Amino acid sequence: MLTAEGYVVSKPRSGLFVVTPYKHVIASIPDTEVYDLSRKITSNPHIPTSVKHADFIDFDPTALDHDAFPIRTWNKMLKEALESHSSMIGNYGNPQGEQGLRAVLADYLRNSRGVYCSPEQIVIGVGMAYSIGILTKLLKDTRSVAFEEPGYNLVRDQFLLNGCEVLPISVNDKGVSLAALEESKAQIVYVTPSHQFPTGSIMPYPERERLLEWANARNAYIIEDDYDGEFRYLGKPIPSLQSLDTHGRVIYIGTFSKVLTPALRMNYMVLPPKLIEQLSNMPHEVLYAPSRVEQWAMQSFIEQDNWYRHIRKVRNLYRKRHHHLIGLIQNHLGQHVEITGQNAGLHIQMAVKKCKTTKELIDSAAEAGVKVYDFQKMWMNQHPVHYPKLYLGFAGLSLADMETGIRLLQKVWFME
Amino acid sequence: MLTAEGYVVSKPRSGLFVVTPYKHVIASIPDTEVYDLSRKITSNPHIPTSVKHADFIDFDPTALDHDAFPIRTWNKMLKEALESHSSMIGNYGNPQGEQGLRAVLADYLRNSRGVYCSPEQIVIGVGMAYSIGILTKLLKDTRSVAFEEPGYNLVRDQFLLNGCEVLPISVNDKGVSLAALEESKAQIVYVTPSHQFPTGSIMPYPERERLLEWANARNAYIIEDDYDGEFRYLGKPIPSLQSLDTHGRVIYIGTFSKVLTPALRMNYMVLPPKLIEQLSNMPHEVLYAPSRVEQWAMQSFIEQDNWYRHIRKVRNLYRKRHHHLIGLIQNHLGQHVEITGQNAGLHIQMAVKKCKTTKELIDSAAEAGVKVYDFQKMWMNQHPVHYPKLYLGFAGLSLADMETGIRLLQKVWFME
Repeated sequence: MLTAEGYVVSKPRSGLFVVTPYKHVIASIPDTEVYDLSRKITSNPHIPTSVKHADFIDFDPTALDHDAFPIRTWNKMLKEALESHSSMIGNYGNPQGEQGLRAVLADYLRNSRGVYCSPEQIVIGVGMAYSIGILTKLLKDTRSVAFEEPGYNLVRDQFLLNGCEVLPISVNDKGVSLAALEESKAQIVYVTPSHQFPTGSIMPYPERERLLEWANARNAYIIEDDYDGEFRYLGKPIPSLQSLDTHGRVIYIGTFSKVLTPALRMNYMVLPPKLIEQLSNMPHEVLYAPSRVEQWAMQSFIEQDNWYRHIRKVRNLYRKRHHHLIGLIQNHLGQHVEITGQNAGLHIQMAVKKCKTTKELIDSAAEAGVKVYDFQKMWMNQHPVHYPKLYLGFAGLSLADMETGIRLLQKVWFME
Repeated sequence: MLTAEGYVVSKPRSGLFVVTPYKHVIASIPDTEVYDLSRKITSNPHIPTSVKHADFIDFDPTALDHDAFPIRTWNKMLKEALESHSSMIGNYGNPQGEQGLRAVLADYLRNSRGVYCSPEQIVIGVGMAYSIGILTKLLKDTRSVAFEEPGYNLVRDQFLLNGCEVLPISVNDKGVSLAALEESKAQIVYVTPSHQFPTGSIMPYPERERLLEWANARNAYIIEDDYDGEFRYLGKPIPSLQSLDTHGRVIYIGTFSKVLTPALRMNYMVLPPKLIEQLSNMPHEVLYAPSRVEQWAMQSFIEQDNWYRHIRKVRNLYRKRHHHLIGLIQNHLGQHVEITGQNAGLHIQMAVKKCKTTKELIDSAAEAGVKVYDFQKMWMNQHPVHYPKLYLGFAGLSLADMETGIRLLQKVWFME
């Protein structure tokens, strides 16, 4: 189903190599944007708030097309939300999330992602950090978390911040290595089966079944992060793990940040009934939902079919960008690179067959005005590197900018 | 400055009594609203989302007047925010909070609360649970937190949830007992000096100075929660602790939930420079700001003077309600009760001089259709009780409803 990649070198359960040839990696978010640390009282209050660098062609994997955002409709939803809920604006809402939003979300998840749940199982949240924070409190007796290696470092760090032990489990072209998982002592595993982050591999059906069997046999929990599950461009959809789960072992996490906008910071989690029961025994302050106003707006957005319409629109948009990017890479970078993860999601992975380090490639791209992203932070442990791997997001770039960007990469990497 | 109360019975450093005559207390938020635990898939998706019970006269201390919320202006701010920031809607924002909002907030805090800080010291957050979560990670080597007794249980629980040891320090009519604090081993103290929650006492200037000296001498941190600092109805304002702090020992926390609406779930924290520096050394995933759209809207709301105008409006509104409530209580409940905390804030404390338990008083009020709130959860330890104490919020009730409510209390408590 996927192009063979050959980058998974570590054997199951292994993972400690001392081969990484470079130490200094480029942070995926510019550090200067993360904290404003100048302690000068005289600082300019009107520094632009954007993290976008207009002068760069930025293959930012977290960016979306800002023109695709339905400003007028969203404004209308906000206005309606405020007006129709005006008598509730003076009160705190349900910390688990507004009942109305959870109800329409349950319908959406059933219809579109095969996730079968009641509104009572849904916890509306303010992002992955929040969701993982709750899960580590709920599952506080199981401190060993198996984690995709390479995997989404921001989520891995949340487990570490919350005092968990993280067991890196190598990823192959079928997702997380089940043999390695089975031999680990983990009681929780975090996976991205729809489109593994960052490699892009998709977990086939038989592996999903085997993963569920592992969880059932061990009374373990699977955290299924379906972060960009709405974006599948080729082939038949594979059912979510949650939809195949008959024993309440899957915790499903989804987000509005990929389809609509990351600016709302709104996500959701579907807990198995047993964990909802456990949650009810915790101090209720552990929960705090995002803005009620935006939750009400999101409810109307889904109810009035804008959500489905928007998904179709951006899926088509990003499918085009995705195909265009693959075409550009094939045409301009051709035999110098190898692409993986090209059937889904909002980014691709690219191995660059050149005797340069990742840092050298990123630096020379940056000098040419192009930002591409590192793979290194996604690894917990050091690992053997055949070819440097970079990843490129395409959702935030126009076709023209993409073309300019790839041509610049061709020039700076292979023609100079 | 404040009416003598006589309710502080525990001596400094003590606090363990076995006097509490009642075990079953009414939760301050109805439990049924906190979790929807029915696991029936068939649940009605259109259950109303409000936590307000229209048929009750509810002296809810967390409620605000929903009619005071400037719907039209806020809609305009949201619309402008989306339109003027449309090119940023596809990107994540600064996890510390939008620079523009932090800049206008720094101005506001300096002008109105005497809090002197740079925008770089401000962390925009999604509520107290989030802020305390960050602080406990930042101050992870100091696990002993002195906490007002009685104090705000929701905040206390956050310290406990994050693995801190909480040392209850008794509160008197000048705020937290400094003698008890000085003899404790605490390295952090959480205080609400503007209007102690829940007793309503205000910390006088000399006590503020002494508290700062304690922090300086011990290199300790003071967490100043100025949750309703905008609401002072009588007497000269007393400077915030942060404004008196010359050694960077005060962490100042404020919220938009009391002046504007709790539905946004937006607050902020001002960190001393040293802690901002420490924050920069933590994994940046520890931070996640609320919705960018609402942050942009809030920035415009403050910039365009709507914030100041709104504070004046609601301060006048709540001053009237406050005076009216005190008058009603004096007229109808008279010598049966004793009120404290009447100079500030959005709630009062009322001792009921009757040989009934708090539960009995709350239950009989509820039977008459009036919700008043318990004091018990605010205590960490058991304590001697002279008279049952209840607290009544007034911001969410019209003058007419207040009058009906107090008359009903008179009837059910003292005339039957």
